[in-house]
Amino acid sequence: MKSVAINGYGTIGKRVADAVAAQKDMKIVGVSKTRPTFEARAAVNKDYPLYIGIPEREHLFRESGIEIAGTVDDMIEEADVVVDCTPGNLGKANLEKYKKAGVKAIYQGGEDHELTGLSFNSFANYDDSFGANYTRVVSCNTTGLTRTLSTIDPICDIKKVRAVMVRRGADPNEVKKGPINSIVPNPPKVPSHHGPDVKTVMGDIDVTTMALLVPTTLMHQHNLMVEINNDVTIDEIIDAFEKRSRVMLVDASEGLGSTAELMEFAKELGRNRNDFYEIPVWRESINIVDNELFYMQAVHQESDVVPENVDAIRALLEMESDNEKSIAKTNKAMGIL
Amino acid sequence: MKSVAINGYGTIGKRVADAVAAQKDMKIVGVSKTRPTFEARAAVNKDYPLYIGIPEREHLFRESGIEIAGTVDDMIEEADVVVDCTPGNLGKANLEKYKKAGVKAIYQGGEDHELTGLSFNSFANYDDSFGANYTRVVSCNTTGLTRTLSTIDPICDIKKVRAVMVRRGADPNEVKKGPINSIVPNPPKVPSHHGPDVKTVMGDIDVTTMALLVPTTLMHQHNLMVEINNDVTIDEIIDAFEKRSRVMLVDASEGLGSTAELMEFAKELGRNRNDFYEIPVWRESINIVDNELFYMQAVHQESDVVPENVDAIRALLEMESDNEKSIAKTNKAMGIL
Repeated sequence: MKSVAINGYGTIGKRVADAVAAQKDMKIVGVSKTRPTFEARAAVNKDYPLYIGIPEREHLFRESGIEIAGTVDDMIEEADVVVDCTPGNLGKANLEKYKKAGVKAIYQGGEDHELTGLSFNSFANYDDSFGANYTRVVSCNTTGLTRTLSTIDPICDIKKVRAVMVRRGADPNEVKKGPINSIVPNPPKVPSHHGPDVKTVMGDIDVTTMALLVPTTLMHQHNLMVEINNDVTIDEIIDAFEKRSRVMLVDASEGLGSTAELMEFAKELGRNRNDFYEIPVWRESINIVDNELFYMQAVHQESDVVPENVDAIRALLEMESDNEKSIAKTNKAMGIL
Repeated sequence: MKSVAINGYGTIGKRVADAVAAQKDMKIVGVSKTRPTFEARAAVNKDYPLYIGIPEREHLFRESGIEIAGTVDDMIEEADVVVDCTPGNLGKANLEKYKKAGVKAIYQGGEDHELTGLSFNSFANYDDSFGANYTRVVSCNTTGLTRTLSTIDPICDIKKVRAVMVRRGADPNEVKKGPINSIVPNPPKVPSHHGPDVKTVMGDIDVTTMALLVPTTLMHQHNLMVEINNDVTIDEIIDAFEKRSRVMLVDASEGLGSTAELMEFAKELGRNRNDFYEIPVWRESINIVDNELFYMQAVHQESDVVPENVDAIRALLEMESDNEKSIAKTNKAMGIL
């Protein structure tokens, strides 16, 4: 039973904590928070030992009646691996801390690839992180692109990928972010950074991306145009998506024609926090014209990377050498179809 | 001085009416409305003779104190050309009416190309409609694509165009339409109809489009990926866009990084109804990688087709044989830069 600490119990951290707690071969030894928020209180109610990220604020927790088990430095001592879910700019300073304590660490996609020199996706490059000290689970968008591209790559012989990513403006709880009624090229430059980020886990694939923000909080949406070198059929593509876990074919004709309906579907699946861990691909959108495959997919930005974090733990700690076996364990414990 | 009637005084019709009234070589002889709305009252206040589209409703106009000049059949008798801005499903029935009256007519992009067998864009195919009886100004999105593609085509030798069109969910006044917080593939099939629609005015250009709806009312946004056959430079592309009227280069770095800021800019230009007739292209987005040109643009769905309607009138009525001269006249009268 390996010991996992979650540094930063926010949107991603709290989900990874629950996913880790659901596994049979690992346990949560601590989660950290810098403020005594409702999430800090919820962590204590779940019996996760709560550690404080900024020791000077201990009195705030005491005044709120939220019990803390110690500081983040104390938490790190208890762990075999730390999943770092802190805001993007803290990664470098935290890495020094982890190195000093001799603990392995997993970062999120908000950090640069250069911080760890290694990035992770369960399907595309699990082996690269096997036994490593530090890795980085790529961002929700990059994970979404990698999930489907790594599924079709073996049968498609991909020549070139173009993707336009229509991104949610803010997470549901980010009340101060926008846009409210606007479309924002983000970045206004082409290509966006997402293409190069896919290359950190899929090697020399040729991917160019454009990205923008729109006024919605639920999911990202991706439009893919994949030039291919062979004569694969639409049925073969559908078959490949159906066989691959963490990718789900959905039908607009069955009432799943938008990101809002997909999130409603997640409620019917009875998921923790109504999360949608899989990458839904619209079946109707799959088409091949002139050796080019087209499809549309969505990404639940709050949760698609969560199972990859669990697999990354098994890779770093050498708990499972076969990525498919880790994926199966993670999926079963999390209820992924 | 040619006589123009506007059948349907809604979002497009009222704008075309004002644009026609601003020209020196044509005048409004009537506009039509089916209900005594605020727009009907505004038309009367502008001294446009108001005709009634559904004669049985005359009493509603009388009760509202809005004076009508007669029926649409009466209006048609006064006109050299009718600009049909009625909802999409009325085109065919109206065409019979225009034929019977021997009046020329211009339709909007909501109608199928097959209705008239002829589609119109001022830059791409003005001559095709010269002296014709009926034509159709392509939709706002198709006009947007055509404006920029026809600008670069002569210097780029276009091989293939891919475009992802992020469409506004509803016009600002459409309070019953959505989406509110969702991204909707629309259609969920690929390719969308927009590509073939561009071909109705640009001949054999190879264009594939994908389209979706998002929760905003202000403008559409397009992401273009244009494979080219030659070694044109970014500066040459910028130069071509700068020289072309009804296309405007805008800089995100100058505070024009979103559709909301563009609409704010239209207010500073002092435009009628704060309209944005030009197609704004984000200068920063223009890039060429591996013989592929990328750029992002926006489309003010309520107004970009308005100057094309004015030019279409001159084409049908053989008022001006040179499209550039018509464009210049229209631009000057409307204050287009």
